[in-house]
Amino acid sequence: MTIIKTAIIQMPVVEDKLKNIEKAEDYLKELMDHKIDLAVLPEMFYCPYQTHCFPAYAEEEGGVSWQKLSDMAAAFGIYLAAGSMPEKDEESRIYNTAFVFDRQGRQVAKHRKMHLFDINVSGGQYFKESDTLTAGDQVTVFDTEFGRMGLCICYDFRFPELARLMADDGAKVILVPAAFNMTTGPAHWEIMFRQRAVDNQVFTIGAAPARDESSSYISWGHSIAVDPWGKVLVQLDEKEGYTVQTLDLSEVEKIRRELPLLAHRRPDIYTFSGE
Amino acid sequence: MTIIKTAIIQMPVVEDKLKNIEKAEDYLKELMDHKIDLAVLPEMFYCPYQTHCFPAYAEEEGGVSWQKLSDMAAAFGIYLAAGSMPEKDEESRIYNTAFVFDRQGRQVAKHRKMHLFDINVSGGQYFKESDTLTAGDQVTVFDTEFGRMGLCICYDFRFPELARLMADDGAKVILVPAAFNMTTGPAHWEIMFRQRAVDNQVFTIGAAPARDESSSYISWGHSIAVDPWGKVLVQLDEKEGYTVQTLDLSEVEKIRRELPLLAHRRPDIYTFSGE
Repeated sequence: MTIIKTAIIQMPVVEDKLKNIEKAEDYLKELMDHKIDLAVLPEMFYCPYQTHCFPAYAEEEGGVSWQKLSDMAAAFGIYLAAGSMPEKDEESRIYNTAFVFDRQGRQVAKHRKMHLFDINVSGGQYFKESDTLTAGDQVTVFDTEFGRMGLCICYDFRFPELARLMADDGAKVILVPAAFNMTTGPAHWEIMFRQRAVDNQVFTIGAAPARDESSSYISWGHSIAVDPWGKVLVQLDEKEGYTVQTLDLSEVEKIRRELPLLAHRRPDIYTFSGE
Repeated sequence: MTIIKTAIIQMPVVEDKLKNIEKAEDYLKELMDHKIDLAVLPEMFYCPYQTHCFPAYAEEEGGVSWQKLSDMAAAFGIYLAAGSMPEKDEESRIYNTAFVFDRQGRQVAKHRKMHLFDINVSGGQYFKESDTLTAGDQVTVFDTEFGRMGLCICYDFRFPELARLMADDGAKVILVPAAFNMTTGPAHWEIMFRQRAVDNQVFTIGAAPARDESSSYISWGHSIAVDPWGKVLVQLDEKEGYTVQTLDLSEVEKIRRELPLLAHRRPDIYTFSGE
């Protein structure tokens, strides 16, 4: 089975944690008509994207919100890539963490954002995740009945090394809960999802929060799905909504056969810097 | 000195080797009014892009055509990235090789295409460089009075590993003589130049032959220059012509300071595959 019906939910994020989770649930209910296999939520979908909010909203793995999401995956019988949320470990370190649940509600993947987003563009965006977050240190792939998938969060995807590691580890789809902003979004969002797809000959899926002009960090939105040839299958605008795409993961093999980029690599050269 | 006036010459390629070299010279003469510092020619600019032509047109380093190009660089007092040409070594192996000459006509860089282009898209492009070519095995950077530059050829640039190695070795500009086709051009050309620029925070320059609908391999054209923020500074259409762009290489440091992508990498993670 290689055909997977995938929903991306571009939901708004409000201050009330529970309201955000209920909003996700409302969308999942609505999506049942579409008989989806997988739903992907945005980065920090239940917590305003502000560094001071992360500790306040953080929960441990297996906490109340985690349990609600697991229950939702099971109730709807879908894979749920539950965006990301602030996660607290036993030593009170905070991570930006993405969990994936399977059709039975079992956690099948957990990714802690491993590249923290610290930016200071003159006349543009300032943000410093490392003020309150700790970086993860694991590359994350997981298996589904459709094939293997990779999982990373927003700024992680800017690093071609990470996408490569996931593809080399068998990922045919890379899921990316993300929230680009009004500076980086128009400049970099679409080409990043397209070029990572082309380079690694995988599907790429970006799920972003809907835009809220009143928030301190304004999301670019534009949730996106790209095929392994780099074609944009769908891209939303900035508004709240969802999209459902049918992905045929066998396209990955077809593209890799026609243009064998991965096989044409020169690891004999890449291992030293040429100096 | 960080400001470099750069010309990209999108010239047609005809069967007559000498006519192609004279055409390049005509363009350089015309460009003298622009007071350029650097000119970049297309891939295989004096040889039709057909595998059986490569051995027939090949010359050794220092051969007649090499000498003409060296003389042209000296005569015009510019850096000349002389596209690429089929190069024969002492054992009659053929390479797709790019030479760069400085203002005195001295060879300052030599790159042998290290990823050979073998493609077979159903309903699209078929081509197999490895039928007649041997791959190079060196990453190529070189120094100019403006800063360090990287050099690779067409399909080489599809591999993010190579661009990374050049950037890590100090390249602020990556020059790419290239010839995408009517299948890969519209799908991949622009986003590749843009995303490599964004990922590595360098300028990228692609120089392609003008389109000739009567040739067996039809060039996409669309010679391009992109800045380190991923902005397309110029992109030609398919027709013969040239463009002159003024690049300020100090932008590289500015972008890297504002969004420190290269510093934010996690080499502690990339060294193993997570398996």
